[in-house]
Amino acid sequence: MAQNLAGPEIERLIQLLARVPGLGPRSARRAVLHLMKKREDLLHPLGEAMRIAAERIVTCSECGNLDTMDPCSICRDPRRDPSILVVVENVGDLWALERAGAIRASYHVLGATLSPFDGVGPEDLSLPKLVERATGGSVKEVILALNATVEGQTTAHYITDLLTEAGVKVTRLAHGVPVGGELDYLDEGTLSAALLSRTAIG
Amino acid sequence: MAQNLAGPEIERLIQLLARVPGLGPRSARRAVLHLMKKREDLLHPLGEAMRIAAERIVTCSECGNLDTMDPCSICRDPRRDPSILVVVENVGDLWALERAGAIRASYHVLGATLSPFDGVGPEDLSLPKLVERATGGSVKEVILALNATVEGQTTAHYITDLLTEAGVKVTRLAHGVPVGGELDYLDEGTLSAALLSRTAIG
Repeated sequence: MAQNLAGPEIERLIQLLARVPGLGPRSARRAVLHLMKKREDLLHPLGEAMRIAAERIVTCSECGNLDTMDPCSICRDPRRDPSILVVVENVGDLWALERAGAIRASYHVLGATLSPFDGVGPEDLSLPKLVERATGGSVKEVILALNATVEGQTTAHYITDLLTEAGVKVTRLAHGVPVGGELDYLDEGTLSAALLSRTAIG
Repeated sequence: MAQNLAGPEIERLIQLLARVPGLGPRSARRAVLHLMKKREDLLHPLGEAMRIAAERIVTCSECGNLDTMDPCSICRDPRRDPSILVVVENVGDLWALERAGAIRASYHVLGATLSPFDGVGPEDLSLPKLVERATGGSVKEVILALNATVEGQTTAHYITDLLTEAGVKVTRLAHGVPVGGELDYLDEGTLSAALLSRTAIG
């Protein structure tokens, strides 16, 4: 019945918005009402920004990053250290590392992590390209910046096997107490890892 | 720093999406990554649906509903009872009542409820048009379908004063136990109202 209230245009907008992560059918309806109120301020610019993004943003054929050019601006950046390759699951992780600003290296986006349960196998990850880049000569170290989940760690093991065979040095992110974290709230695994990897002071 | 990663296009899309109710800066970033993955499936159609909605959807000058035509399809519907006018705060409430399908009446959308604390006064509500419609001759009953909040009830009192002065019959939604509701979880006000308005069985 609802689809006849304001015509199929609004109903289609609600249905599409409900597929955006973070929104559901009910919040999509609320969002559309808000968008209709802010037509000039928000609805029109948002539609335009989506059109532009859909047209111009491409996936970098080198590293898998999203950008308006291919190769992406990170791959083109001459100030990046080409001897270090940071492997991440997705572009969101790449953005998170770039926000941290701790390293000016190259990246490689896998696109997924191994998850046999969900039917995600090695062929679903950007692995041949990773091996090609890692063994191309200029890369001296591959840093695996993968989630500390079962899937992330399975993937890390798989890639380590793949690359050490090819003679590439592979490292992974340190486990430990998050900065600002309280011991009382941490799980036993993290505490054990932080103890094992303790560092000398001063 | 993040805005240089994938160019200003993505950053603008994130900023606009973060202003949609239900999304924040962090979930907007996640949503954009999802949209970029589903470019043909979701991003492109969504941008197009927004463009169409921004262009075609108008506010009905009669009742305040949203539609592609003015007067809207509800106001044009000859099967609606023109003697009953249901007053709601916003279009979302109108949709909710239409989904319930309990009445085939005309509507009047106020656009807001009185909230002196937030600086919303009678001049911010579509009241002159309501009085004009209610006293036009064909309307026999005005049903106030307003939220059972302080603002909703203040507005209901204000409109009742306004319309009874003009000789119009005004009613409001019944208070009581929600269908499927458990007494143990209901507040005292609702329980008292349900007791006071008890109905004979059979």
